[in-house]
Amino acid sequence: MSTFHDLTEQFADRHIGPRPDDLAAMLDAIGVDSVEQLIDETIPASIRDDALDLPDALGEGAALERLRSYADRNQVVTSLIGLGYADTVVPPVVLRNVLENPAWYTAYTPYQPEISQGRLETLVNYQTMVCDLTGLDLANSSLLDEATAAAEAMALARRTVRGDRSTFFVHHDVHPQTLAVLRTRAEPTGIRLLVGDLDDLERDDQDVDLAGDLFGALFSYPTSTGAVTDWSASIERVHELGALAVVATDLLACVLLRSPGELGADVAIGSAQRFGVPLGFGGPHAGFMAVKTSAARALPGRLVGVSTDTGGRPALRLALQTREQHIRREKATSNICTAQVLLANMAGLYASWHGPDGLRRIATRVHGLTVVAAEALRDAGRSVRHGTWFDTVTVDLADECAADAVVAAALDHGLNLRRVDGSSVGFTLDETTTPDVVERLLVSFGVDRADVATADLAGAVPAGLERTAPLLPQAAFNSYHSEHEMLRYLRRLADRDLALDRTMIPLGSCTMKLNATSEMEPITWPEFGSIHPAAPDDQTVGYREMIAELEAWLAEITGYAAVSVQPNAGSQGEFAGLLAIRAYHRDRGDDQRTICLIPSSAHGTNAASAVMAGLDVVVVACDADGNVDLADLDAKIDASGDRLAGIMITYPSTHGVFETEVQAICAKVHDAGGQVYVDGANLNAMVGLARPGRFGADVSHLNLHKTFCIPHGGGGPGVGPVGVREHLVPFLPGDPLGDGAGAVGPVSAARFGSAGILPIPWMYIAMMGADGLRRATEHAIVAANYVATRLDAHFPVLYTGASGRVAHECIIDLREITKTTGVTVDDVAKRLIDYGFHAPTMSFPVAGTLMIEPTESEERVELDRFCDAMVAIRGEIDRIADGAEQLESSALRMAPHTADDLIGEWERPYSRESAAYPLPSLRQTKYFPPVSRIDGAYGDRHLVCSCEPLESYASDLLLTPTSR
Amino acid sequence: MSTFHDLTEQFADRHIGPRPDDLAAMLDAIGVDSVEQLIDETIPASIRDDALDLPDALGEGAALERLRSYADRNQVVTSLIGLGYADTVVPPVVLRNVLENPAWYTAYTPYQPEISQGRLETLVNYQTMVCDLTGLDLANSSLLDEATAAAEAMALARRTVRGDRSTFFVHHDVHPQTLAVLRTRAEPTGIRLLVGDLDDLERDDQDVDLAGDLFGALFSYPTSTGAVTDWSASIERVHELGALAVVATDLLACVLLRSPGELGADVAIGSAQRFGVPLGFGGPHAGFMAVKTSAARALPGRLVGVSTDTGGRPALRLALQTREQHIRREKATSNICTAQVLLANMAGLYASWHGPDGLRRIATRVHGLTVVAAEALRDAGRSVRHGTWFDTVTVDLADECAADAVVAAALDHGLNLRRVDGSSVGFTLDETTTPDVVERLLVSFGVDRADVATADLAGAVPAGLERTAPLLPQAAFNSYHSEHEMLRYLRRLADRDLALDRTMIPLGSCTMKLNATSEMEPITWPEFGSIHPAAPDDQTVGYREMIAELEAWLAEITGYAAVSVQPNAGSQGEFAGLLAIRAYHRDRGDDQRTICLIPSSAHGTNAASAVMAGLDVVVVACDADGNVDLADLDAKIDASGDRLAGIMITYPSTHGVFETEVQAICAKVHDAGGQVYVDGANLNAMVGLARPGRFGADVSHLNLHKTFCIPHGGGGPGVGPVGVREHLVPFLPGDPLGDGAGAVGPVSAARFGSAGILPIPWMYIAMMGADGLRRATEHAIVAANYVATRLDAHFPVLYTGASGRVAHECIIDLREITKTTGVTVDDVAKRLIDYGFHAPTMSFPVAGTLMIEPTESEERVELDRFCDAMVAIRGEIDRIADGAEQLESSALRMAPHTADDLIGEWERPYSRESAAYPLPSLRQTKYFPPVSRIDGAYGDRHLVCSCEPLESYASDLLLTPTSR
Repeated sequence: MSTFHDLTEQFADRHIGPRPDDLAAMLDAIGVDSVEQLIDETIPASIRDDALDLPDALGEGAALERLRSYADRNQVVTSLIGLGYADTVVPPVVLRNVLENPAWYTAYTPYQPEISQGRLETLVNYQTMVCDLTGLDLANSSLLDEATAAAEAMALARRTVRGDRSTFFVHHDVHPQTLAVLRTRAEPTGIRLLVGDLDDLERDDQDVDLAGDLFGALFSYPTSTGAVTDWSASIERVHELGALAVVATDLLACVLLRSPGELGADVAIGSAQRFGVPLGFGGPHAGFMAVKTSAARALPGRLVGVSTDTGGRPALRLALQTREQHIRREKATSNICTAQVLLANMAGLYASWHGPDGLRRIATRVHGLTVVAAEALRDAGRSVRHGTWFDTVTVDLADECAADAVVAAALDHGLNLRRVDGSSVGFTLDETTTPDVVERLLVSFGVDRADVATADLAGAVPAGLERTAPLLPQAAFNSYHSEHEMLRYLRRLADRDLALDRTMIPLGSCTMKLNATSEMEPITWPEFGSIHPAAPDDQTVGYREMIAELEAWLAEITGYAAVSVQPNAGSQGEFAGLLAIRAYHRDRGDDQRTICLIPSSAHGTNAASAVMAGLDVVVVACDADGNVDLADLDAKIDASGDRLAGIMITYPSTHGVFETEVQAICAKVHDAGGQVYVDGANLNAMVGLARPGRFGADVSHLNLHKTFCIPHGGGGPGVGPVGVREHLVPFLPGDPLGDGAGAVGPVSAARFGSAGILPIPWMYIAMMGADGLRRATEHAIVAANYVATRLDAHFPVLYTGASGRVAHECIIDLREITKTTGVTVDDVAKRLIDYGFHAPTMSFPVAGTLMIEPTESEERVELDRFCDAMVAIRGEIDRIADGAEQLESSALRMAPHTADDLIGEWERPYSRESAAYPLPSLRQTKYFPPVSRIDGAYGDRHLVCSCEPLESYASDLLLTPTSR
Repeated sequence: MSTFHDLTEQFADRHIGPRPDDLAAMLDAIGVDSVEQLIDETIPASIRDDALDLPDALGEGAALERLRSYADRNQVVTSLIGLGYADTVVPPVVLRNVLENPAWYTAYTPYQPEISQGRLETLVNYQTMVCDLTGLDLANSSLLDEATAAAEAMALARRTVRGDRSTFFVHHDVHPQTLAVLRTRAEPTGIRLLVGDLDDLERDDQDVDLAGDLFGALFSYPTSTGAVTDWSASIERVHELGALAVVATDLLACVLLRSPGELGADVAIGSAQRFGVPLGFGGPHAGFMAVKTSAARALPGRLVGVSTDTGGRPALRLALQTREQHIRREKATSNICTAQVLLANMAGLYASWHGPDGLRRIATRVHGLTVVAAEALRDAGRSVRHGTWFDTVTVDLADECAADAVVAAALDHGLNLRRVDGSSVGFTLDETTTPDVVERLLVSFGVDRADVATADLAGAVPAGLERTAPLLPQAAFNSYHSEHEMLRYLRRLADRDLALDRTMIPLGSCTMKLNATSEMEPITWPEFGSIHPAAPDDQTVGYREMIAELEAWLAEITGYAAVSVQPNAGSQGEFAGLLAIRAYHRDRGDDQRTICLIPSSAHGTNAASAVMAGLDVVVVACDADGNVDLADLDAKIDASGDRLAGIMITYPSTHGVFETEVQAICAKVHDAGGQVYVDGANLNAMVGLARPGRFGADVSHLNLHKTFCIPHGGGGPGVGPVGVREHLVPFLPGDPLGDGAGAVGPVSAARFGSAGILPIPWMYIAMMGADGLRRATEHAIVAANYVATRLDAHFPVLYTGASGRVAHECIIDLREITKTTGVTVDDVAKRLIDYGFHAPTMSFPVAGTLMIEPTESEERVELDRFCDAMVAIRGEIDRIADGAEQLESSALRMAPHTADDLIGEWERPYSRESAAYPLPSLRQTKYFPPVSRIDGAYGDRHLVCSCEPLESYASDLLLTPTSR
């Protein structure tokens, strides 16, 4: 008998790669009789816990329908709220071919630059745009949002200025969420925030010695309430005090205004959202930061720069990688890992699409309409707060409590305004604002003006603040103004890169699994994309219900009491989790509990986050199997005494193993009064089989961009929710626009972080259900053990659990090979490109190894294709070991090979065909990288991170943006 | 002063390629001072007419908003109407990566097979699927819809059987729209339709001698009202009568049923819509046709087959091209040109996605639910018409007039049923039908049944009619069941092809212009995609308003009184237009007016359409300039006397020139009592500058897939509206589901033809406005003259107008080159692939020439890139002319070059680099074709058109579907 349900497709069967026959063959190869047996041999029975209480799995159509019902309960109202978020038009050609194109959104962070030249080029365009508009020398390839960018600037200023200084001045008219996040970030590291007016920088009657203690100051330009202020004198004063000046700015305003750099700023920060990135109820958007060259090496986040490949071609790659916290660990002053690459690329492409003329037209229009509105209000006798504006106007109302009435009147006209306080109301115009909107806006204030459409929009930039510098003269912003040219540019760029749409990306610890289309579809629905983060609650009912449901599901899956989705990256989740631990201890009067134990195998971010959260890192040793050394743990706990705050462990471990002693570790720490943080990076090995919140952890962050299918976007967006047990619930992140009453402040600019992409994990969980999620985890473990089994004879697998099994990833050890042949992990990684693959994770967590995570989404044919490539490479290594070939002149060392190299002069000892087609199947589908191996060090020595020099440099070669 | 409007982007500036600076440089190169001067020199002043009355151009956002308002006035109601249209789920991965991916939808018909291997592979999959499911030997790569497929089958039968036979039997229970189209197609060519019951095939008391006159018969399986009948005996009877048996069938039914082929059918036809193609208010969908091998050479439309390339690799291409009507002209018995490639590919991919198991599950579910419903109705005492069902049930109601009440009751439950007649109602279930829908359906009939979800859906295929043949065992249908595998398959296929997303496609007469994203977005909105063509009018208000507006705009643009969008291809538009002319004459009693004059330069389809419309073709000579020879025209008019029906001309001519005598030609024909048909293929040279309906034409068809931005989809869909002057309005195509009262029957299955893609031209016209449309035409003419100017010194331009100007395309003459060097148009076309280009139109309208149409959407940089390639090729030709190289061993003759060839053994006299990178810019972005030059004749001699032999054939080479 077959019922309707029996005959209905399950989404899990599309998400999970191997078909039943494949699974049987894989289990056979591994040497187990069943999935159950493998799981029993892999996960300690003591922590097994597979009774998830989740709704029945929905089919793709039903899930979309359900999500549609949430979307329908949101109300898309024209937002003039401002606060650093402005409505914008995503150029359709970018929407369809970038944001909706798996070639762009499924790409990984460009750590393997040879297969990432396309998105690296757009990132350089983005960096160039930020530099050009802000008038500074160097911009990174994005931060998480404007508020955290301000916090990063604060940290940068502190580590850059001489001496031990602790005061940071914040001009009061910055966005409230920026101030809230600065407060969260300042307090644990002992930074004193001085929020005030300009006078406060002049007075010497304060309780702090500015000249001796000020390390930086933040101004906004335009200010949050709309003033366009010439900060030159203030910045000069800040410099006199020996501190750095940070300016929060708006990219569209910079089109018309003298740049922050010209005003003297050392650092400019802000959000690139209004350059063609949907509001998304607060995110994800690219935060930007630009600095003077002198601060280059203090710049947090990632920086793309030009270097050269072995063929002498200019080639892009991440510059200054040694700054990353996985090297600096607890000495890092930033824990930032992921960026907002997809959104930064969209913003850069928006500038390429409009070009200087188009941007000037948009900025002039927005500004002109603002002036028309402001002057109409003033002419009608309204009290307009400032005498200067770009796109934002604040009106002080006569009546003490009139703000609510005006806001309500505007809503009747379909507009959301900003309620600044009880008696003042603000509005911010944007590129979507039409004359009709301005007319309705004025009517909301009781002012009639019917001729906005015919008004002269010349605008009125304050005298002396007009931009006179050239605007975006680079070819990247002057070549793609017709849709065909842009379409083809996007295709050319995408074709240079390898993403999940062409190959598996077996990156250990990064969980590059399927990002299903049905999960991606809803994020571009206007009811999710076009909502301002400060929209009134009754307009966001559906969003908040969906988020609450997702948080509840994640709590159920992790075994925690509550989850907050606010952290917009894993690093932010760590920070939030550690803040909760710290706040918990302090709430109990245990202020002295500041020691955070971290195993030596931990991801570097762990240590950096701990330091940011005001904790002191003590490293715990690992044993030969990569597990926590229990004796050393005991010793460190003893030594910490009542200063023990907690421990941060990763489970399964960064070595890809389920440590059997995890419960014992948790118990030891708890017994000593500490809290246990379990890093959720490896949650893909546990969903449906074990729950950290039930086996001893107090807090975890998850990576929705790993386990829960948010695509990596080429290096962001990420989402890093934090989950906590009951006693830590009061210490979850607060509302950045709330009343500040929470015990712990916000960690992100927006209440729900990157809300705009939360439909992705919602869809995933809704469509998988408890059973599907468990099966996915089982398949991930099967796949890793299958790969380990197939490769072990060729490359020894480094760590296994008690029964010889790995978890969801495996580490293969090349150190002996390197010692005997000289072949490095780099050689193998680059040679894999010739075989059409993205390399596994290199030298993490152990130098000289590769960590492979196949995930559940790869069919056996793809796993075999990868294993075949690895086995063939082992054969190539053997020929070097045998002396049949010399490493220096081998295909391994010369890898990867461009088509150009293969077709040109050839004097290498190996054949062209063995270089290009080491396996016969490659003749059918072959990826040629656009550059050969890149010399990263060269680029670091000659730091070039924007387009202009690039062009002169590149002449007619690959990187000229107009080139074909 | 700048107003809001001055500062607001115009879509036309994105659609039109050249920037103002480029335009100036291009005019300079052409040698004119202004666009106006060029147009004056190009278009005869006497026909200039540029006062279009169209609404102001809307921006992209505003246009989408306006279209959204139409969409909102449609109502998406669950359709159980049937009639050959069933709701379906487009697999999301196919939706996003095919239907919404320009790499697929902007491709051209695969006439250049070397750059079309990807979509040719999916077409072979589609053909294989149709053969497998229908049990026949050979399927074409799609027809326009099910009704025209039936008409094509009728024509095929007539030309296949021996003797001069004129009777075609149609079993009465076929879909009404099929019968209506058969009537339209039968009458002009003297076919007698015998519509009846099976008895009518047995009786000999009829007024026709079946044994002597019957050439074919059509049965449907299942029938329109749902019976699943074993037609074997009837088919045998048809064969005994010396005729062919055609079976209209349903692909999903064939999953469970004995195939038509096994029942003895010679031809099977139907629609592949329910295999993952949206309803779209009637289209576009792929009609299919499969035949026995014996009928291979009579098969209309296109057929993809396997051949081999110069490297011995298996390679796909269109087979049996000599069957095309551009060779047969008036001897052709079908005028079909374009197919429904995009939709056929989607249907084939649907089968690949679900595979045999998935399809069986879907078919079983649909059938099982149908049986549950039918039996519940019968058990409740309702009179269910047939005793067998697949997915359709017809209920005969007790009350004479009860149908309306049941239909209304169902609508109250959110369901559309089929009102078969006043006392009977039908319903058809589909893959989206849930138990809940069945329960609501039954309630509509007053029957309660609450346990559908738990019912056994084993189904009840009539005994003896169960499918026993293997189901889709080919690798193409057993390899891509996880989303990652399908995603990568689609990417690999797309990467093999060149479409507009990578390069201009300068195809003369095909107008490969921009298909803007904002034009494409609405077609996947459910309010346009999910509407059944027979949905009640009050559910399609928005659709019909939008269509009426589009028809009115097209009438305004062409100067006609009315336009019908029903014809779903240019060939259908021609047929409809000629039917109107014929009906007009007959309506006036001029039945003898049957002579249709056609210039010798005309597209072959013209002649074929004329014959189909019952006209007699008389060819008019052209002069040395390619213009109609007026003296010969006079002579032919005289000779025709009162038998003259009209003339078909193309304007500007197929030679790419505005003949100055066009008005004189029209007048001569009118004076002789004839009508003037102007083929609108070249309308892209006239929009906004001249109107055929105003300068003398009576009727035209347009190609919305040329001038009005519907993408070519790799070879369809097309839309070919017909426009007529006032006196022909009564003779526009009728409603296929109407009462048949119209003077001319329907030419397509659906009232509005391919309604689902009409939002594309609507958006285009709405966003361009009159001014934008005129500018586009001007730019198209500038671009063609620019290319002509740049190339003339290298390849003589064949035809120009009186002032030495070409229209929107130019023909370059290679005949002298071929004579002196042996280099053919084929050599140049294939060598262009090495330069990254799709070839221009080859040897049309003049053998030995290339016709280039650059369109307005290409920026100057792209035009120059193309001209540079042509100039470089001319250099290569010169080296052969000089004797420096031998043609047979030259890069020209060996072109195109695969990467495989370039990297492998090399013993050719030219270098690898000169083969791969004849211009330095190619090193930056290089397309490598997957195969080298294909031997078409080989494939025609060894006709293989489906996957099965392909695999064994291909072994581990390119075409194995599982290969990488």
